[in-house]
Amino acid sequence: MATGHADPQRRERIVAAALDLIADEGVAGVSHRKIAARAGVPLGSMTYHFSGMDELLREAFRHFTDHIVAVFDAHLAGPADREEARAAVADLIHTLSGGSRRDLVLTQELYTLAARRPSYRELTQEWTARSRAHLERDFDRDTARQLDALIKGLTLHRALAREPHDRALTLEAVTRITRTGGGPPSGSPG
Amino acid sequence: MATGHADPQRRERIVAAALDLIADEGVAGVSHRKIAARAGVPLGSMTYHFSGMDELLREAFRHFTDHIVAVFDAHLAGPADREEARAAVADLIHTLSGGSRRDLVLTQELYTLAARRPSYRELTQEWTARSRAHLERDFDRDTARQLDALIKGLTLHRALAREPHDRALTLEAVTRITRTGGGPPSGSPG
Repeated sequence: MATGHADPQRRERIVAAALDLIADEGVAGVSHRKIAARAGVPLGSMTYHFSGMDELLREAFRHFTDHIVAVFDAHLAGPADREEARAAVADLIHTLSGGSRRDLVLTQELYTLAARRPSYRELTQEWTARSRAHLERDFDRDTARQLDALIKGLTLHRALAREPHDRALTLEAVTRITRTGGGPPSGSPG
Repeated sequence: MATGHADPQRRERIVAAALDLIADEGVAGVSHRKIAARAGVPLGSMTYHFSGMDELLREAFRHFTDHIVAVFDAHLAGPADREEARAAVADLIHTLSGGSRRDLVLTQELYTLAARRPSYRELTQEWTARSRAHLERDFDRDTARQLDALIKGLTLHRALAREPHDRALTLEAVTRITRTGGGPPSGSPG
């Protein structure tokens, strides 16, 4: 195995180790030393590959959001009409909320980082823009924006719920938020 | 000033200091020593008031969710009909998303804790149940569930967005998700 400084796999190993460590201990728990140990690379090679923790965190979370955007893409590339698109979004929500605890934790770690340090909001902005671009294949711009927020909320609720809601409720919510030509709002309470 | 072990204000000061520390450094950064220093209480008094960090974290986050539920209550206690209730929910989302960075960070810290350690999900469950109870005054049970998820998603999006969406879009989203008697879904794409 070539393991010189310029070994591109070493850079990838560092990014993977950083994500593993964030998933286990949180952004607050990472350090160059711990990441190097986990990646199995000399501490000195960290500064060769990354200018600092800021660059490493950005690359690690970009790598993670690439993965989630790929899940969006896998679900939303296919549908032929609006009904199929709604079903695909419901499936996407159930895939995301039923997925690994690691993905759930990393998603929340990224939001927490962006909440605490506004300079990291370009990561969540870019992620949101890419998610919406997928949704805008099937829905108008404003609807995609509302639907993206609903996806975030329903995914979080399902993932943390002791009794997760069923697919029928997810599909009903997706259908309502994408019903642009719908009838007049019901006036009766309850 | 009475500052004996049994001083109830001391317990409150410890909880407040714990929340301040979580907001600044995250759950991963808290320790008995740091909290005691911040609260201005002797380290030894921590074990008098709390059996351990677990109890302290639970009480601190319960204190925080009480605060957010009070914001729900302030917005949702008044409305007389469904249209007013929708407007009140839109205002609630804008209050939450335009509020302090501290509230935003603490919300995300709680979700992250619950994502990583399922034993803390009873905190988010209880919070969700209380939010929904407010929404169920004006909307049926399933609608309240969908609306609660939408509130979470829209609040997070607005809080982190460089160009937050306007109130018209929030109200449109709330209206759509609560339109239970609506017309048939629009069949045309885009």
